[in-house]
Amino acid sequence: MTTVIINGAFGKMGTTSSQTIEASKKFQLIKRLGRQDNLFSSINELKPELVIDFTNANCVYDNAKILINNKTKAIIGASGLTESQITHLSELCITNKTGCIVAPNFSLGAILMMKFSAIAASYFSEAEIIETHHQQKLDAPSGTATKTAKLIDASRRTSKNAYKSKEFIAGARGAISSNTNIHSLRLPGFLASQQVVFGSPGENLTLQHNSISRDCFMPGLLLACNKVLNLNHLIYGLENLLD
Amino acid sequence: MTTVIINGAFGKMGTTSSQTIEASKKFQLIKRLGRQDNLFSSINELKPELVIDFTNANCVYDNAKILINNKTKAIIGASGLTESQITHLSELCITNKTGCIVAPNFSLGAILMMKFSAIAASYFSEAEIIETHHQQKLDAPSGTATKTAKLIDASRRTSKNAYKSKEFIAGARGAISSNTNIHSLRLPGFLASQQVVFGSPGENLTLQHNSISRDCFMPGLLLACNKVLNLNHLIYGLENLLD
Amino acid sequence: MTTVIINGAFGKMGTTSSQTIEASKKFQLIKRLGRQDNLFSSINELKPELVIDFTNANCVYDNAKILINNKTKAIIGASGLTESQITHLSELCITNKTGCIVAPNFSLGAILMMKFSAIAASYFSEAEIIETHHQQKLDAPSGTATKTAKLIDASRRTSKNAYKSKEFIAGARGAISSNTNIHSLRLPGFLASQQVVFGSPGENLTLQHNSISRDCFMPGLLLACNKVLNLNHLIYGLENLLD
Amino acid sequence: MTTVIINGAFGKMGTTSSQTIEASKKFQLIKRLGRQDNLFSSINELKPELVIDFTNANCVYDNAKILINNKTKAIIGASGLTESQITHLSELCITNKTGCIVAPNFSLGAILMMKFSAIAASYFSEAEIIETHHQQKLDAPSGTATKTAKLIDASRRTSKNAYKSKEFIAGARGAISSNTNIHSLRLPGFLASQQVVFGSPGENLTLQHNSISRDCFMPGLLLACNKVLNLNHLIYGLENLLD
Repeated sequence: MTTVIINGAFGKMGTTSSQTIEASKKFQLIKRLGRQDNLFSSINELKPELVIDFTNANCVYDNAKILINNKTKAIIGASGLTESQITHLSELCITNKTGCIVAPNFSLGAILMMKFSAIAASYFSEAEIIETHHQQKLDAPSGTATKTAKLIDASRRTSKNAYKSKEFIAGARGAISSNTNIHSLRLPGFLASQQVVFGSPGENLTLQHNSISRDCFMPGLLLACNKVLNLNHLIYGLENLLD
Repeated sequence: MTTVIINGAFGKMGTTSSQTIEASKKFQLIKRLGRQDNLFSSINELKPELVIDFTNANCVYDNAKILINNKTKAIIGASGLTESQITHLSELCITNKTGCIVAPNFSLGAILMMKFSAIAASYFSEAEIIETHHQQKLDAPSGTATKTAKLIDASRRTSKNAYKSKEFIAGARGAISSNTNIHSLRLPGFLASQQVVFGSPGENLTLQHNSISRDCFMPGLLLACNKVLNLNHLIYGLENLLD
Repeated sequence: MTTVIINGAFGKMGTTSSQTIEASKKFQLIKRLGRQDNLFSSINELKPELVIDFTNANCVYDNAKILINNKTKAIIGASGLTESQITHLSELCITNKTGCIVAPNFSLGAILMMKFSAIAASYFSEAEIIETHHQQKLDAPSGTATKTAKLIDASRRTSKNAYKSKEFIAGARGAISSNTNIHSLRLPGFLASQQVVFGSPGENLTLQHNSISRDCFMPGLLLACNKVLNLNHLIYGLENLLD
Repeated sequence: MTTVIINGAFGKMGTTSSQTIEASKKFQLIKRLGRQDNLFSSINELKPELVIDFTNANCVYDNAKILINNKTKAIIGASGLTESQITHLSELCITNKTGCIVAPNFSLGAILMMKFSAIAASYFSEAEIIETHHQQKLDAPSGTATKTAKLIDASRRTSKNAYKSKEFIAGARGAISSNTNIHSLRLPGFLASQQVVFGSPGENLTLQHNSISRDCFMPGLLLACNKVLNLNHLIYGLENLLD
């Protein structure tokens, strides 16, 4: 069995991930680290084959550097890294000949929704995005929505219709990101949902993803754990693990 | 058979309505009037028992007054009348002891969606509205959406959650009308759709109405035709015909 | 504060309900009873003003009789009671001048979906039901689906279209219950969902309810707790508490 | 401009297609043929570069042979051809060094929905299909639904869960085709809709396609017209034209 340490093991994602790793037959959870623990000394003492890091934006970059420099295979679950940080970690992996997977989203369903949106946009240039989250998510639109908009726009072969809509109440037509209108709902009774709606004369195509619990991240996490063991470079985004 | 004249008979609604009245066993279409025709002389010459008026905002008010003063039962299919105009027409009906039904929307499905929204809002004060129309509809949000928002707000027993969302792209959270967020999509491949989404801890309830052709207005039109024959006052809105 | 005992307090519904009662400002949870505990001696000893019973089909009827005969206000969360058992409990409440609420479903969203389905069916006689549950729910269709079908059929003013569909694979058109086609999906990633789809020429109306956690039963439970305190008879079904 | 004859030009698809070809700048409609017309003599007389055939199952195979043997580029819009007929037409194209596209469905949205379903099924083996059509479609399930089921099953990497559901009303769990449950609704107010619902622990992914008018077939038709001009073999299915 592959030995695993989870860092940030007592938050929501860390807790669910701990249960998943403990239940797996291939991985053995040897230590759960919290805020008071020291990552560097833990890996030197316990020598895990793999570390899963769900710590927050403030320390995740430093943690990633420690792991890569130590040639410990690493799964980094973070959306807050900048492009230049990712580039640097990528170079560090090459230098150290070690593998690392950085993923802002571990849901295979969300990954597929984005992938399909990109394909559909090359046939249907008219598309809008609706995303619905619980009310504790204060900012809008969501990162998944703006990323989807970016993928759609990159894939369009013809530009969006140039018609002018008239908002007689400001905001009616949503936020415009990458030439795509995004509508954000914040309601109790939802965890995370997104619909991407494509329209063409006489037909519409909707891709809809709903998460109802953090369990949805576990198959993607296990996929990443399996893939990283044989990896000698950095991969950013779970979509690049799909075959 | 009840004799009927349709005024504004050559527009989209007028054409579909003419076919419906012609196909009915209870009503006899004796004349279709267009822009060049004179309503006043037509009703004096042909003495119809019922006139259906689908003319536009500019002349519909004058037409309604002509019909009511002539004691001809009237169905007025217009959304552009002001509240004071409706009040005046209502008084005119009382004076003339005649019936008139003014309806901005003849779709029974849309009427039921609004009625149910009002009921649901007394249990679920958190609600948002998504409306999707073809791209020829330039203004946003739709009249049905703002009317639904008004009904929802009047029915709330507790006020909406006072949480603050942060739009990092303007418009993400939609238009706010009657304390309710409205999101307007404009896409080909749709005629007219509306979803009213209610959320409460652990559950969500969505009321969704889709129109795919103008046929959807015909059952409501026939209902109005039947009801107006025995009416001695004005009724505004098809929802007030439902029992 | 009103004193409360929860019987069957360690199952899924009992656990969530215990947290809800403990968090409320109006009710005080004085005891949680499990399988080994005796309801009769507990109420005699602790004299609660209200008992909430989430025990199973085998003992719930006897528990209800004990509570009513003891003049303890009772909420019975059970779907397994027969009509004759409910009739008998109802008579027992009258005799003892005490209140009891028996509810198979505490979700206000589900109750509203059923209520709206009954109203819609009096205008749209064509309706079908789709219900989706997790795969641990082995039987199909769900009780909520067959109850909705019953309400729809009772409310139809015209009978369903008499057209004949041809199944070239058996089961394609679903189960027929109360003249209404019901389609049952069993998939991971869902807790409990139901769509009631109404169709009429040119338009369709869909009422959709999704539960994502047992939290959705808590507002209905609190509503029942509040109502039962002033009740001197039995009410069956949360829909009869709505005003 | 490329000269075009439409055969079966007076049915629903033929009428819409005629308008589309007439409106295009690349194609010139030189003749519309109906039931009384002779295809063979028309192509010999008018020598069109392209023939679009929307005739019915009885004569479409013979028409296709006439066109291919005459080396006339052909679009065949038919779902009734058998596999052996398609194989034979394919061989005939090779012999005659000419192009032919046979397509049961010209909607790009429907084609994408099927393509995405196949991809999704390699990650989510649990999937069910809901298809909703107008009530004039008498047979169930639809050809698109059974084709989607076939694609899903071919793509599954792990077999479906082996749990046993219990239908207490026959048909509740739908038709089983290619190990996939299909549910067919027949309601007014719909033209053609299909939902493919994928479930995995904690999340669900739905791919939904709605057609609201025959206009939706026109972009696919034009795509086929453009592609067939440079083709020297037969392509079956519009999905094989996408790049």
